Amino acid sequence: MDLPARRPASTLVEGRLGRAGARRQRLGRRPRGLARARLARLLGARLRGPGFRGPRLRAGGLLARQGEAFARDPLGDLRRGVVEQLAENRDDHRRHRRGDRGPGAPEEGGHDGGDRRRGARDQDGADRVGPLLAGAASAHAPEGKEGIRSKLVTNGASYEADVVVVGAGLAGLVAARALVAAGASVVVLEARDRVGGRTLNEPIGNGEVVEVGGQWIGPTQHRLAALATELGVETFPTYDEGDNVIEWEGSLRRYRGTIPRLGPAVLADVAQAQWKLNRLAKRVPLEEPWRARGAERLDSQTVWSWLRRNVYTKGARSLLELGTEAVWAAEPADLSLLHLLFYINSAGGFESLLDTGGGAQQDRFVGGSQLISLRLAEELGKRIVLDAPVHTVRQDDDGVEIVADGVLARARRAVITLPPTLCGRLEYDPPLPGYRDQLTQRMPQGAVIKTMAVYGEPFWRAEGLSGQATSQDGPVRLTFDNSPPGGSPGVLLGFLEGRFARELGRLEPDVRRARVVDCLTRFFGPRAAEPDAYIERSWADERWTRGCYGCYMPTGAWTAYGDALRAPLGSLHWAGAETATVWNGYMDGAVSSGERAAGEALAALA
Amino acid sequence: MDLPARRPASTLVEGRLGRAGARRQRLGRRPRGLARARLARLLGARLRGPGFRGPRLRAGGLLARQGEAFARDPLGDLRRGVVEQLAENRDDHRRHRRGDRGPGAPEEGGHDGGDRRRGARDQDGADRVGPLLAGAASAHAPEGKEGIRSKLVTNGASYEADVVVVGAGLAGLVAARALVAAGASVVVLEARDRVGGRTLNEPIGNGEVVEVGGQWIGPTQHRLAALATELGVETFPTYDEGDNVIEWEGSLRRYRGTIPRLGPAVLADVAQAQWKLNRLAKRVPLEEPWRARGAERLDSQTVWSWLRRNVYTKGARSLLELGTEAVWAAEPADLSLLHLLFYINSAGGFESLLDTGGGAQQDRFVGGSQLISLRLAEELGKRIVLDAPVHTVRQDDDGVEIVADGVLARARRAVITLPPTLCGRLEYDPPLPGYRDQLTQRMPQGAVIKTMAVYGEPFWRAEGLSGQATSQDGPVRLTFDNSPPGGSPGVLLGFLEGRFARELGRLEPDVRRARVVDCLTRFFGPRAAEPDAYIERSWADERWTRGCYGCYMPTGAWTAYGDALRAPLGSLHWAGAETATVWNGYMDGAVSSGERAAGEALAALA
Ligand SMILES: Cc1cc2nc3c(=O)[nH]c(=O)nc-3n(C[C@H](O)[C@H](O)[C@H](O)COP(=O)(O)OP(=O)(O)OC[C@H]3O[C@@H](n4cnc5c(N)ncnc54)[C@H](O)[C@@H]3O)c2cc1C
Ligand SMILES: Cc1cc2nc3c(=O)[nH]c(=O)nc-3n(C[C@H](O)[C@H](O)[C@H](O)COP(=O)(O)OP(=O)(O)OC[C@H]3O[C@@H](n4cnc5c(N)ncnc54)[C@H](O)[C@@H]3O)c2cc1C
Repeated sequence: MDLPARRPASTLVEGRLGRAGARRQRLGRRPRGLARARLARLLGARLRGPGFRGPRLRAGGLLARQGEAFARDPLGDLRRGVVEQLAENRDDHRRHRRGDRGPGAPEEGGHDGGDRRRGARDQDGADRVGPLLAGAASAHAPEGKEGIRSKLVTNGASYEADVVVVGAGLAGLVAARALVAAGASVVVLEARDRVGGRTLNEPIGNGEVVEVGGQWIGPTQHRLAALATELGVETFPTYDEGDNVIEWEGSLRRYRGTIPRLGPAVLADVAQAQWKLNRLAKRVPLEEPWRARGAERLDSQTVWSWLRRNVYTKGARSLLELGTEAVWAAEPADLSLLHLLFYINSAGGFESLLDTGGGAQQDRFVGGSQLISLRLAEELGKRIVLDAPVHTVRQDDDGVEIVADGVLARARRAVITLPPTLCGRLEYDPPLPGYRDQLTQRMPQGAVIKTMAVYGEPFWRAEGLSGQATSQDGPVRLTFDNSPPGGSPGVLLGFLEGRFARELGRLEPDVRRARVVDCLTRFFGPRAAEPDAYIERSWADERWTRGCYGCYMPTGAWTAYGDALRAPLGSLHWAGAETATVWNGYMDGAVSSGERAAGEALAALA
Repeated sequence: MDLPARRPASTLVEGRLGRAGARRQRLGRRPRGLARARLARLLGARLRGPGFRGPRLRAGGLLARQGEAFARDPLGDLRRGVVEQLAENRDDHRRHRRGDRGPGAPEEGGHDGGDRRRGARDQDGADRVGPLLAGAASAHAPEGKEGIRSKLVTNGASYEADVVVVGAGLAGLVAARALVAAGASVVVLEARDRVGGRTLNEPIGNGEVVEVGGQWIGPTQHRLAALATELGVETFPTYDEGDNVIEWEGSLRRYRGTIPRLGPAVLADVAQAQWKLNRLAKRVPLEEPWRARGAERLDSQTVWSWLRRNVYTKGARSLLELGTEAVWAAEPADLSLLHLLFYINSAGGFESLLDTGGGAQQDRFVGGSQLISLRLAEELGKRIVLDAPVHTVRQDDDGVEIVADGVLARARRAVITLPPTLCGRLEYDPPLPGYRDQLTQRMPQGAVIKTMAVYGEPFWRAEGLSGQATSQDGPVRLTFDNSPPGGSPGVLLGFLEGRFARELGRLEPDVRRARVVDCLTRFFGPRAAEPDAYIERSWADERWTRGCYGCYMPTGAWTAYGDALRAPLGSLHWAGAETATVWNGYMDGAVSSGERAAGEALAALA
């Protein structure tokens, strides 16, 4: 592939404000101070990121820009350009369909047809969304007010569309796709130089990838499953054969199935607690958790407090703490009981959250979960603007104006898909009402560091081990066999979650690596001590995410502020996994939230 | 007073980057991508706010600007310019000293002398801090790289100083003053068009003011008391004579002293709970609450959970809930028990927090609490830049670069004094480590709407009432006689706190007013039904505060992230009432935090 030449950093092109400038005329009716402030801000769109070159849409669209980004920043978030990833993933996919899955795979023609259709839609998109500044750049505007103003315009591009979508994670891409399918024009602004948000493929050589973000799909995740099918992204089962191990009271035990041998008292205790939680969870209406019977009481206590009163053995408490970390990447002390119950109900039961077979960890995506976002991005094409961190969201009677570093987008509606704590960091004009701001002050992200150790082969399989380990001691509390579909290379996935992520997140990388590998060696023997490669991602340190898997509610938040979570404010609609009713916090929830928000925006446009 | 003429909105002056531009040369050693991104950002300082006119320091300094702001935006945060406020406050002050306080007041000469000294320091400041762009503005820079760049430079001013202070609330102003006193050059960037942050005077005619933010000072608030004395701001006792009333189980009861007649069981229950809380609180080390004996356990439960286990009567629970709202503007369900205990210890006991005489509500400031900030601002003079909301904080080996809308400030150290949740909204480059970011995700602000009803005279006094009421029903749960020192006009202060602020914050202003006045009428009779004026301030809706009185910690935050609260990060020091060890969350804590942070910065500069 030919990459466009790198631009010198200083090639900055000016332009007039174009239509945005024209709009100013219409502001006459506002109080003067407001209009003036607004104007000043309009002129001041911040510039950031690597040398934009005037209206970006002329630079060759998404694919070229991804390539450019790759050439520019091989060490950044973007490990490779979309193009290469897609090519590689498709190779994988084909190889896999030929080899590992056999005749059960859907027929190939459909997918290629799909690819061609996506190409056609790209063209379509180019017609609908266009840079307002194109051709209007002028370095020698006449002097006087207008002339001076035009010189202050930064070198960013400007867009106009029916809807602007903020964030190109799953929720944003799905919302954009639904809007486009309904005939709306869309522009998607993404802070990173890649799409996919909390899903991210990491290449491990030979065209294989592992996911450093979200990866599994399980039963009842219908929206995600339907989307993957439409996009031709296949699944394969998580490796789940052989014995599991548990490190318990200082020693390692092997067991088969989902229940370790920890003594009948502990197991009965866990069972009764899960039963109680499931029963309580059913009380919690997914649309309005704050209307659950006894909601105030449930929202006034932590999960820790509930466990103390309802779990009788130390062993069971320890296991349930581990389960809490695994699902919420937070501690029982952090979570509102009402939130835990809502979340359980949202997934259809505690077991759905915890289980591999039959639960949320059942299947994986061939080519990596990010492939879904990459395919969506390919469909959306030039509608996506990367490297465009949004900082300001303005509303007026005509709609919204979204300002990202170097980019200005005007639309009638906006769909904002950031994790809630990041939604709270945008500047809104007019400012959002206090109750909405205070909601997002109360939606912290969990902490997780996903680590993977790569070996020549999955040696544990030969020893009759599933690669799934659980540990009372940690810091790695949970592992999985995360090898690619073909079983080569062998990959062990180790999660650092909640307090372990917080503590180990502060260590030097090589110290942390040593502690992780030490765990793997304890669980799987000396062969685990020398991985060929080690990969990790600390999501709390990611500027455009700031914690994972997602946010949780501390006590008091749902009942006091929950109704502000999805309620549109003016022209703003809220999406993202945290706004979902079903599978809240999961990729499936992200997908349905995008669909819902697109529906809201379309209804408002009609 | 002559106000400077209003500038037309479009008078925007360009300039070169001056020294900031020169710094670019030295960045050669960095990886190119980084340097380039940094450069782009450097160029892109956002513009905002009403028509700046080139380097602001030429516009006549703080006082002129305050006047300008007043002319421009009489309805905004700034109800009147500093100048007028000062004049008025001084009149008050003199009148008061002449009349109400008698001979006990400190002698007059000292204060006037103080004023003169402040004038002299202004000159001083002007020498130390200067705009880098002065004289460098050019609308016709030559073409080519530099030429184009110079055109992109916004019209903001640029500063260089030893220390930049972000926020001109009490903490920021005190820090700046301490730094200046030690010989450092300082620039203070403030988002609002006024100083004082969460303290704010509101004129009620005849030169009198009431405070819509923080107002009281109590015993042991030594840092605040010392500062007020130095600045010649006097105190007077909160009106505390006559009977209090309590609305309890549907009826109104009058009582004298601090203890309402609610039956011995309830009173004994409250007493034992307070005793227990005070005893537990003493365990909590103020520097490191997370090291308290049993800290994890204390931080894993809400105050609600503790009250349920340790308080036996409904009445006592109800009273303690009221107390929690009064102190934290939040509900027992919201707060970590460890936080409550830390806070109690920080104030020296639960009673210190709750009491009027002998407690935090004992005295008030003549001329209003904001007078302290206004006097500090007068001392600091041109070192303060108003209308400068900081959005980006960059660090490199040489120090920091702080970017506000239209302003760029370079310094060796920075002192950031925003409420923690707002600290979390700034953009840091390089990004802050995950654990610090996650701390500020877990420090929500409480909710309070402070309301005041103004009457011709404090009619309740004649009826033997103190003006202090407590109500089980609300929405106003707590009132005070907030009349000016001379007792005219009469002012009733009503607090909407916690859930009442959240609920009433969503109502239309006149509906809310009606509900507040209805409460006052229930408590103080029909004469309260027709106030001459009604004043309110909802701090959750204030863009540059986003909740009050201050932040609280939900469960799990102190133990997991507490050590990141004050720890400097690179060249950044953290101040603000929420970072204080003594009187955390109070004006006194703000003062000591500013002093501490200044000390840290000075040590680093040395
Ligand atoms: C380690 C890990 C493991 C997980 N495991 C699973 C799993 O196995 N199964 C599962 O279903 N889910 C899993 N999840 C959760 C799942 O990944 C998320 O729920 C889902 O990806 C969220 O999608 P989203 O679109 O709602 O949000 P995001 O993916 O966070 O998308 C938000 C987008 O907005 C962008 N953005 C942020 N700020 C700005 C700004 N100012 N301007 C413009 N753009 C901005 C971000 O870069 C991002 O692209 C996991 C997550 C992690 C991190
Ligand atoms: C209604 C109410 C009643 C109270 N009652 C009392 C009382 O009786 N006694 C008592 O001791 N305390 C009281 N308090 C608390 C007290 O007011 C505060 O603790 C104290 O004023 C905090 O000072 P600070 O400097 O730490 O923070 P702030 O006053 O909040 O100062 C922060 C400053 O930063 C500015 N800022 C914010 N964002 C930016 C940005 N991006 N760039 C630049 N500047 C920015 C703000 O405008 C502000 O000026 C009360 C508070 C309220 C609201």
